[in-house]
Amino acid sequence: MESLSDYRRLSLNQATTQSWSLQEAIDGCARAGIPNIGIWRDKLAAAGLDNAVRMVRDAGIHVSGLCRGGMFPAATASERAARIDDNRRAIEEAAALNADVLVLVCGPAPDRDIAAARTMVAEAIETLIPYARECGVRLGIEPLHPMYAAERSVITTLSEALDLVEHFATPQVGVVIDTFHVWWDPYVFTQIARAKGHVLAYHVCDWLAPMPHMLLGRGMMGDGKIDFRPIRAAVEAAGYTGAIEVEIFNQTIWDTPGDAVLAQMGERFLQVV
Amino acid sequence: MESLSDYRRLSLNQATTQSWSLQEAIDGCARAGIPNIGIWRDKLAAAGLDNAVRMVRDAGIHVSGLCRGGMFPAATASERAARIDDNRRAIEEAAALNADVLVLVCGPAPDRDIAAARTMVAEAIETLIPYARECGVRLGIEPLHPMYAAERSVITTLSEALDLVEHFATPQVGVVIDTFHVWWDPYVFTQIARAKGHVLAYHVCDWLAPMPHMLLGRGMMGDGKIDFRPIRAAVEAAGYTGAIEVEIFNQTIWDTPGDAVLAQMGERFLQVV
Repeated sequence: MESLSDYRRLSLNQATTQSWSLQEAIDGCARAGIPNIGIWRDKLAAAGLDNAVRMVRDAGIHVSGLCRGGMFPAATASERAARIDDNRRAIEEAAALNADVLVLVCGPAPDRDIAAARTMVAEAIETLIPYARECGVRLGIEPLHPMYAAERSVITTLSEALDLVEHFATPQVGVVIDTFHVWWDPYVFTQIARAKGHVLAYHVCDWLAPMPHMLLGRGMMGDGKIDFRPIRAAVEAAGYTGAIEVEIFNQTIWDTPGDAVLAQMGERFLQVV
Repeated sequence: MESLSDYRRLSLNQATTQSWSLQEAIDGCARAGIPNIGIWRDKLAAAGLDNAVRMVRDAGIHVSGLCRGGMFPAATASERAARIDDNRRAIEEAAALNADVLVLVCGPAPDRDIAAARTMVAEAIETLIPYARECGVRLGIEPLHPMYAAERSVITTLSEALDLVEHFATPQVGVVIDTFHVWWDPYVFTQIARAKGHVLAYHVCDWLAPMPHMLLGRGMMGDGKIDFRPIRAAVEAAGYTGAIEVEIFNQTIWDTPGDAVLAQMGERFLQVV
């Protein structure tokens, strides 16, 4: 495991600084010496794609990921087709930004049939692979914590995401590993090893206990229950050498000035990640 | 799958009627025609064990389970020994009540080492097996939803619980399956099949979306996202023919008069469980 003595691998995921526009986040990274950014599509839309591409190029910042594609299951075929279309736009955006990965948050079931929703996810990704290949974009399936199964993603474990990756068997599709979503899994180390060569992004965020809020109560690394170093070692042993994105949905952090957040995040990155 | 046309298999877990004492819950079950009850140890302590045994016998109600043993991991050997002692008391209580099972909620890690906590759980159960056998009590390992991994149980999936059951390989140890905790699991049907002969209790409760509260926001069956019938069919195919306990931690339900809760719970039991 490489020692993280500088910020070369650190990336600011924009979810951590929700109040900042894309330009503000890029400027904040420049001030803090953070060379990578994970961009969100709502911030991208607000900036405009061409403008954003220019901002990124001018700043010389590397785009470690675009969040998010996915949200595939829907009640009707026409709704599912609309989701696919939106994902094609996301692929084009990821290509324009030269992002390492388009992160897929796969979506919840439209009803009580979670198995059918999982099939819809597989079918949608299969449909998107040729276009992703054509655009040179890799799709990263991010398993979300099982507590989001009803509202965010029916793909809930790394094992399940890897079942899909192995099914497609193409370099175009891999996984995104986020400590917040996988830390509890009794088989997490076995599954990270199984992911060898397929890890497209690594996100960090701590698990607070008690958790103040199911969605906006995630924690700064070091403030919660996760032992980060063994997980990072496993991710690196699985061949991942890319950016480490800090993605924290937390109202208190959102209410803190962005420069202070980046300073603390950088410090914790060196101390515990 | 047997059709549930009456309440023979229905059990009231006392967590559903938090404001009721044990006597009140037993009387409520009698009025509603519910022949089984799952008892909580705090309610049992308030009633006194001898008194409770008499109440149960006088009412002719069957005790489908005692909640809860467990909470095994602790920072020091003496604390862990104290937890074991408390579990011995729980085994004695389950024996006195002739409960089908002592439900084990295994407990969180005292620190950031979840793997070490899992080892403590295994060691504690191993220590308790001879006494459970002597008392004629079965220990049911209940995997809790992964969102409780930091505060309630490091045993988070049915698969993990079955790893323990297979390790001990004794009829004294089995699993407790609660729909709320396992419904999201992509491998839940495979694992229920694997549990054949080892299912000691089946609990039902729905998953509300959005969830009003992580602990006290569970739902009445039919109000949430869980498709109960396929899960019950799998549990029965795995050989379980015992009581079906309704266990719902929900502040709104707790604020509703108990008789109304039992009426709705009985109706939903027949309709959707």
